Amino acid sequence: MSVAATQPPATATSTDPETLGWMRGFPPAPDRTITFQNGSFRSFPELRWAWSNIRQLVPTVNVWRGAGPASPLPRADQDIGAVASTTMDGRPMTFANMLEETYTDGIAVLHRGRLIYERYFGALKPHKPHIAMSVTKSFTGTLAGILIAEGKIDPQAPITDYVPELKSSAFGDARVHEAMDMTTGLAYTEIYTDKNSAVWGLRRANGMAPIPPDYEGATNIFDFLIAQKKQGEHGKAFAYKTVNSDVLAWIIRRASGMTPSDLLSARIWAPMGAEEDAHYHVDRIGTESGGGGLSTCLRDLARFGETIRNFGRFNGRQIVPSQVVEDIARGGDPEKFKPAGYTTLPGASYRNQWWVTHNAHGAYMARGVHGQGIYIDPKAEMVIARYASHPVAGNAANDPVTLPAYMALAKALMAGG
Amino acid sequence: MSVAATQPPATATSTDPETLGWMRGFPPAPDRTITFQNGSFRSFPELRWAWSNIRQLVPTVNVWRGAGPASPLPRADQDIGAVASTTMDGRPMTFANMLEETYTDGIAVLHRGRLIYERYFGALKPHKPHIAMSVTKSFTGTLAGILIAEGKIDPQAPITDYVPELKSSAFGDARVHEAMDMTTGLAYTEIYTDKNSAVWGLRRANGMAPIPPDYEGATNIFDFLIAQKKQGEHGKAFAYKTVNSDVLAWIIRRASGMTPSDLLSARIWAPMGAEEDAHYHVDRIGTESGGGGLSTCLRDLARFGETIRNFGRFNGRQIVPSQVVEDIARGGDPEKFKPAGYTTLPGASYRNQWWVTHNAHGAYMARGVHGQGIYIDPKAEMVIARYASHPVAGNAANDPVTLPAYMALAKALMAGG
Repeated sequence: MSVAATQPPATATSTDPETLGWMRGFPPAPDRTITFQNGSFRSFPELRWAWSNIRQLVPTVNVWRGAGPASPLPRADQDIGAVASTTMDGRPMTFANMLEETYTDGIAVLHRGRLIYERYFGALKPHKPHIAMSVTKSFTGTLAGILIAEGKIDPQAPITDYVPELKSSAFGDARVHEAMDMTTGLAYTEIYTDKNSAVWGLRRANGMAPIPPDYEGATNIFDFLIAQKKQGEHGKAFAYKTVNSDVLAWIIRRASGMTPSDLLSARIWAPMGAEEDAHYHVDRIGTESGGGGLSTCLRDLARFGETIRNFGRFNGRQIVPSQVVEDIARGGDPEKFKPAGYTTLPGASYRNQWWVTHNAHGAYMARGVHGQGIYIDPKAEMVIARYASHPVAGNAANDPVTLPAYMALAKALMAGG
Repeated sequence: MSVAATQPPATATSTDPETLGWMRGFPPAPDRTITFQNGSFRSFPELRWAWSNIRQLVPTVNVWRGAGPASPLPRADQDIGAVASTTMDGRPMTFANMLEETYTDGIAVLHRGRLIYERYFGALKPHKPHIAMSVTKSFTGTLAGILIAEGKIDPQAPITDYVPELKSSAFGDARVHEAMDMTTGLAYTEIYTDKNSAVWGLRRANGMAPIPPDYEGATNIFDFLIAQKKQGEHGKAFAYKTVNSDVLAWIIRRASGMTPSDLLSARIWAPMGAEEDAHYHVDRIGTESGGGGLSTCLRDLARFGETIRNFGRFNGRQIVPSQVVEDIARGGDPEKFKPAGYTTLPGASYRNQWWVTHNAHGAYMARGVHGQGIYIDPKAEMVIARYASHPVAGNAANDPVTLPAYMALAKALMAGG
């Protein structure tokens, strides 16, 4: 692959949403107006504004941070912008250039629990929630892990023990852990660049795409899930399909008797001492999208990453049972992951809605389209939280630049500190 | 009018949204599901859930409370539930019964700056925002007042000095103060019970009602405003028409260069030490409804009322210039108000988006449909903040019960304290 072929159509600087003036003015100019109904919020560069302002486009539900003070996030600024790496396609790169090249909206780096680097670009501000996309799944997986640790969910149980309405669907003979590890056999496809892919039906159902006139598909998440068809066998191979996460979100609703927003608030957001409320976008009957609907401010994403890195302990308390994190960090079966063909993630696995690199540092990740992510490097005692608005949905567009930069930074921090 | 005729169709207790189980379950039962698209959120008793959960139904924009601590709201509980009054139609009433009879979702009473009474009912919780409806107008009017005091808006200037696009509309020859006092002459009608009234066109435009297929009317606030037609003369008489408030919101946008959400955050919400973020619902191009779109938690509504009662001083600082409050408290011209025929508000006036009773205590109010309100009694040093979900939109359904109860409480507090 040539360098030219990997170049995106426009740079982060030339598509800066503040410079372009999206949604500026009263009213915004017609060619600077972004709406939900015409779908422009999903186009590039419009999405550079939209991912930091999703609640202005779709209904949402609050994730309350509680009434207490925000937890301390001690600062120890380090200028890591010059840390050098080499991209997977052989180009020299610095940490700062990586941020620019991958359309970063915000990045926070924690080393040994201290915030050593924090930058905002584009439309993001420290107090503003940015959509986490599929990083949401790792929250859903962690909440499920908490309920498993408490004996409220049995990962070996049939999914229909919790959601009997899925009996006639593809999930009718699947087990909870198969949804958690995305090893179910489903006809559903998730190809972001193909408008006929099933993922667009899910987006219409979960409220993140408008309903066309005379549309006969599902207009809420539940109806979409119960209509899923099986293809192949469960438990054989990893296949990244968001419906698994939405099923898991339904399981945690039933097992806890709480909505994901209330559960996340009670179990993580408030105990963690988040500094801002978060929110989920909801479908047309109020259902949170457990597969991609969460928006948080960057520092709270970093707090959550640090909570996980510390085996669930943060803000002076045990928030997530340590065995939940141990299970994630240990990872899944790389042999089941391999056939999925992620060339940027050789030897990796997927476990409980987290991506596990099995690299020399034992790093694992939460990942979302357009460059959202939490990168946890246990060996380097480093957590990177990152929000972005990359023109390409799939993270294969980010990984060749970001992953080497993260490893280089980890090594630099280990050497330096 | 007989007692029977004033009785609403169902009691607050029998329509409690928690008891009825609206939006409970995963998914909610079809007959317990409330959606935006089918308009059910505006029906009674569904609205008893919806007014406490509006952001789950429509897009919103955040009003940030800032990063600081919440301002103290010292407590001095008093059991005022038994305070007796007589309704305008001659029935004996207690303060507690008034709350039940008028479908109160939450009430907070401040006396001399202390929170003496706070109750929540139905779907409202202390940390949850409830829609303020037209109480929003009084925030818009207060923000306009601040900008007037700073010389950024001239109340005597033509509206077109700020919004030249209104040149061909009814507002083309009106002045700022005429919009503030709602003395413009407009063809627009605001009859909540008439589906053909212009207010429904405004609701479609501002995002609080769905757009029917093949609808040719305005689908955003700006387009709705510039199409308003004149009827009668400006400056002659008060006529309660929400488009004035939306025009005023547009004036403050242009004069401040900020959105109402950012302006409210910077000028009031953060300095006041609000304990929760607030939000506005927005139209399809991101415009806050300055006439009815604000949602706040109850205590913050009480904080704002106390700020105004204290001539703009609260949380150790002067938030609103005192002359802004003096101008409101002095009131408008009762002769211009009289023809509007508010039988429950004899001798009252309307000034800068506030309702002024000109009663013996000099009380003035912010008021919103279905029973939303701030009642400020300067003589009794009392502020009442109230959210409600009354089945009837117009406050003539509340006033005969609430206003005598408020005055009786004021007198009891003056006698007792």
